[in-house]
Amino acid sequence: MSQAVRVTVWNENLHETMFEEIRAIYPEGIHGCIAGFLKDAGYDVKTATLQEAEHGLTQDVLERTDVLIWWGHMAHHKVEDAVVDRVHQRVLEGMGLIVLHSGHASKIMRKLCGTSSELLRWREAGEKEILWVVDPAHPIAEGLKDRIELSHEEMYGETFIIPKPDDIVFISWFEGGEVFRSGVTYTRGRGKVFYFRPGHESFPTYFNKDVQHVIVNAVRWAAPRAMPQVTLGEIKEPIMPLANPTHNVIAGLHEKID
Amino acid sequence: MSQAVRVTVWNENLHETMFEEIRAIYPEGIHGCIAGFLKDAGYDVKTATLQEAEHGLTQDVLERTDVLIWWGHMAHHKVEDAVVDRVHQRVLEGMGLIVLHSGHASKIMRKLCGTSSELLRWREAGEKEILWVVDPAHPIAEGLKDRIELSHEEMYGETFIIPKPDDIVFISWFEGGEVFRSGVTYTRGRGKVFYFRPGHESFPTYFNKDVQHVIVNAVRWAAPRAMPQVTLGEIKEPIMPLANPTHNVIAGLHEKID
Amino acid sequence: MSQAVRVTVWNENLHETMFEEIRAIYPEGIHGCIAGFLKDAGYDVKTATLQEAEHGLTQDVLERTDVLIWWGHMAHHKVEDAVVDRVHQRVLEGMGLIVLHSGHASKIMRKLCGTSSELLRWREAGEKEILWVVDPAHPIAEGLKDRIELSHEEMYGETFIIPKPDDIVFISWFEGGEVFRSGVTYTRGRGKVFYFRPGHESFPTYFNKDVQHVIVNAVRWAAPRAMPQVTLGEIKEPIMPLANPTHNVIAGLHEKID
Amino acid sequence: MSQAVRVTVWNENLHETMFEEIRAIYPEGIHGCIAGFLKDAGYDVKTATLQEAEHGLTQDVLERTDVLIWWGHMAHHKVEDAVVDRVHQRVLEGMGLIVLHSGHASKIMRKLCGTSSELLRWREAGEKEILWVVDPAHPIAEGLKDRIELSHEEMYGETFIIPKPDDIVFISWFEGGEVFRSGVTYTRGRGKVFYFRPGHESFPTYFNKDVQHVIVNAVRWAAPRAMPQVTLGEIKEPIMPLANPTHNVIAGLHEKID
Repeated sequence: MSQAVRVTVWNENLHETMFEEIRAIYPEGIHGCIAGFLKDAGYDVKTATLQEAEHGLTQDVLERTDVLIWWGHMAHHKVEDAVVDRVHQRVLEGMGLIVLHSGHASKIMRKLCGTSSELLRWREAGEKEILWVVDPAHPIAEGLKDRIELSHEEMYGETFIIPKPDDIVFISWFEGGEVFRSGVTYTRGRGKVFYFRPGHESFPTYFNKDVQHVIVNAVRWAAPRAMPQVTLGEIKEPIMPLANPTHNVIAGLHEKID
Repeated sequence: MSQAVRVTVWNENLHETMFEEIRAIYPEGIHGCIAGFLKDAGYDVKTATLQEAEHGLTQDVLERTDVLIWWGHMAHHKVEDAVVDRVHQRVLEGMGLIVLHSGHASKIMRKLCGTSSELLRWREAGEKEILWVVDPAHPIAEGLKDRIELSHEEMYGETFIIPKPDDIVFISWFEGGEVFRSGVTYTRGRGKVFYFRPGHESFPTYFNKDVQHVIVNAVRWAAPRAMPQVTLGEIKEPIMPLANPTHNVIAGLHEKID
Repeated sequence: MSQAVRVTVWNENLHETMFEEIRAIYPEGIHGCIAGFLKDAGYDVKTATLQEAEHGLTQDVLERTDVLIWWGHMAHHKVEDAVVDRVHQRVLEGMGLIVLHSGHASKIMRKLCGTSSELLRWREAGEKEILWVVDPAHPIAEGLKDRIELSHEEMYGETFIIPKPDDIVFISWFEGGEVFRSGVTYTRGRGKVFYFRPGHESFPTYFNKDVQHVIVNAVRWAAPRAMPQVTLGEIKEPIMPLANPTHNVIAGLHEKID
Repeated sequence: MSQAVRVTVWNENLHETMFEEIRAIYPEGIHGCIAGFLKDAGYDVKTATLQEAEHGLTQDVLERTDVLIWWGHMAHHKVEDAVVDRVHQRVLEGMGLIVLHSGHASKIMRKLCGTSSELLRWREAGEKEILWVVDPAHPIAEGLKDRIELSHEEMYGETFIIPKPDDIVFISWFEGGEVFRSGVTYTRGRGKVFYFRPGHESFPTYFNKDVQHVIVNAVRWAAPRAMPQVTLGEIKEPIMPLANPTHNVIAGLHEKID
C-alpha cells in the first residue's frame, strides 16, 4: 500500500492524569505509548482524548481515520452520545475499530454488540495471564508464538456476555482459575471490529512487544478496503399491481400517523 | 414440557386499520392471524399493539412472556424508546424474540444488531419468492420440505447489512433476480433471536401452512431454558497488591469526575 | 417425545480390561458407567465395544441408533475403516455423534473434521480442570452452573487444530497454565456432532454429576429430527441447448476414461 | 510482499482435450486461461494436470506452492489417493486451496469437509446466474460491485450439504428458481480454503473479468502467513502421580494390542 493507514488512538486519559503511580508507568499516557509503537510500524498516527472538544473525534477527524483505537475504563458515561453515534456511523461505513481492555463496556462497543453492562467476571489481583492463540491462520496472529505471557494483569473471566464472534483469535488463562475470549472479531456494516483484552492501567502491558505486535497486526487487518456498495432495487413493472404499494403508503401516511 | 410456552404477538396494527384492502386479507389483524395458529399449536398466546398504553408491552407483560413476536413496518419511529429498552433488557435476560418481515428495520432489531437503517434492496412488485432450506438439521427447519414457495411477495435483496448470523436457515430466491438470507438466528445475552423475512401486509403470507410451521418451530426453539448465571470474581488476596485498585478508584472517582 | 431416544455407547474397552487400577475406577467399563446414567435419564441405551464382531457397530445396530457415543484412546488404529465409513455415512444421514476425550484423534472424528493427527498440547499430571460455560443459552448448558470443576484430569491445551466450531459451549482452564475449547459442536450432513473433552480413564470423571448432566443434555440436542431432504433439479427445457451436456458426457465418458 | 505468491493451477484437462466445442472455448485449457490472468496479476504461476506423472503434484511441486487452484469435473475418481493425501497434508500445513465449480465433489474437497457425495441440486440448462455479494467487507469481495452477472451457466442449487462455512461471500441466483452459497471459506489446520462455484466448461466463465477479479483476490487471501506453531505440553512434575500414565501405557501397549 503506497498510502499509510491512518490511525487515531483515543484514550480516556484519566488514570494517567489523576494518579502519579499510573503516570509513572505511562508518562505520555496510554495513547502516547500506543501511538508510539504504531508510528514505528509505519502507520500515520494521531491521538485524541476525552478532555478535548468533542473528545477529539470531530466528523472531520473521523473521516480522515481508517482505524480507530479505543481505550476507556472509568468514564464511559462521560462520553457524549453524539460522538458515539458518529463513531458508530463511521464503523458502519467501513472504519476499523480496535477496542482495548475495559472498552468492552464502552458505549460504542455496547452499541455495536447490542448488549448491555452485565458482561463478565473480573478481579484485580495482579495475577498472571497467558493468551493462547486458537486461530493460528488468522492475520492478527501472524508472526506470533503460540502464546503471550503477561506476568501481572487484571483478570476478566467467562461468562463474557457477547454476541458470537466472527473469529476468536486468543483465549486467556488466568492464575486464579478463569478463562476469557481475549481476542475476538466482528463485522458491523462494512467495518471490522477487534476486541483485545489486555491493558489494565496499573501494568506496563502496552510496552510488551507481543501485545504491540497484535495491535500492529490488527490495524492492518481492520483497515478498510474498496467495498461493494448496496444498490436499491430497480423499479420494475410490478408483476402484480398493488392497490397500496408501501412506498406510496408510507409517503402518504407520515402525515397521518406523525 | 408440562407448561405451555407463553407467547406475545406484537403488531403495529396500522395497515389493517387504515386500508380496507389489507383488512380484507387480515380481518383480525396480522397479530390475530398469527395468534390463531400459535394457539392451535398449543402455545399460551396473547397479543399487543402499538396503539395500547405502553404499546401493550408493560414490564409485567414482558415478564410473563417467553417469546415475543414482532411485526412492524411503517411506524418504527412511533415506538417509544423506553419500551424498546425494556424489550431489549428482557431479551438479554433470556426472552426469545421473533422478528418478522420489515421488523428488520425496527428499533429493537437495530439495537440488538448494532446496525442502522442502510440495510437492503427492496421492490414491491408482487413477485414470486422461494425460500430454500440451507440448514436441514436446524430445529427451525424440522418437518419442512426443501423449500417454501410463495406466489406473491415483496422483494428484499442482498446485500442485507446484518451481523454475521449464528445460523442461516433459509435463503430466498425472487423472480426479479435477487437472493436474501431470509431466516437467520442470533443470540444476545441469554436471548435467542430469529429473523424471518416473509409477511408483507398485501399478501396472505401468514395463512400459508409452511410459513406457520416455521413460526411454530421458531417459538419452540427460542423459548428460554434454565440457564447458567454469571458469577462475579471472588475477592481473593491480591497476588500483587495495587496502589490504586480500580474498584477503589472508581468508587472514589465518581465524585471527582462526575 | 413418546419414543425414547436410542443411544449406543461405544468404548474401546482396553484400559479397563488391561489394568487393575483402571478397572477399580470403572468396574463395568467406561461404557457401562455412561450407559448407566443415560438409562437413568430415560434413554433407550445399548453398548458396543472394539472387541465385538464389527466392533459391535453393524449396519443394523447403527440404523437403530439415534445418537452414538464414542470413547477411544490408545487403539484408534485398530478400528476398521469399513466401520468408520459406516458410522460416517450414518452421521451424514442424521445420526447424532458425541465424541469424548481422546476421541478427538479417532478415525471418525478426523474424517468428519477433515484434519489429521497434529492436534493439541497434552500433559498427564492429574491437574485441576475448570470448564467454564461460554454459551449459557445453548441447550447443552441447560441447567448447569457457570462452571464444572474437576479435581484431577489429564490436560489438553490449545492450539487445538480443529475446524471452526458451529458453537463453543465450554472452555477449560488447567492448573498448569493451559486453556482448551472443551465442548464444541459441528453439523455434518444432517448429523449433529458434539465433542466433549473430559474423561481420562485414570479419573472417575464420568461419575461426576455435572459431566453426566452435559452428556444427558447433549444426547437430547443431537437426536435427529424430521429433516428436509434434498431434491434433484427438475429437468427443464434447456434455456440454451448444449452440444455436450455433462450428464450425457459423463455417461458416455466413463467407458473412455476408465 | 517482495516475493510473488506461488500458484499452481491444477486441471483435470479432459473436456478440453476430448471435445472440440470445449477446446474452442478454452484453446489453452481451463488451466491455461486461469494461469494467464493470474500471471497478469503478478503471481508466480505454474500449471499441472491429471495426465502428468503424479498428476503434476509431486511433493516438490506442492512444497513450492503457496496456493493451489483445483478444477475437476468428470474424473474425480481418477485422482490417486496418495496425491489427495499429499495435498491434504499441505493444506493442513498452511497451503491455500481454491476449489472451483464441480471441484465441490472432488476427493480433496470431500476429505477437507468431512462430507460425501450427496451434495446439491443441479441442472444443465445454460441459464442466467447472478452472484450477489453478501459480505462486502470480505477481502475476497474487494473492488467488486454488488453482484456478478453471468449470462449462461450450469445451475447448482441448495440444499448444498457442506459444513457451516467460516464466511459466506457470495450467494447465487439462478433463472430457474434456485439459490446457492457460491463463495464460501474454510480453515483446515493452517490452510485457508475458498470454494467458488462458477466455471462450467461449456461457457467462457473464466474469461469474465469479475470472475477473474474474485480469483485474484482469493489467491491473495489464501496465501500462507508466518503462523504460530503448536508446542507440546512441557513435562512437569505430575501434580498427582499416576500408576499408568498414558504415554507409558501407549508405549508399552502397542506391542500387546498390535
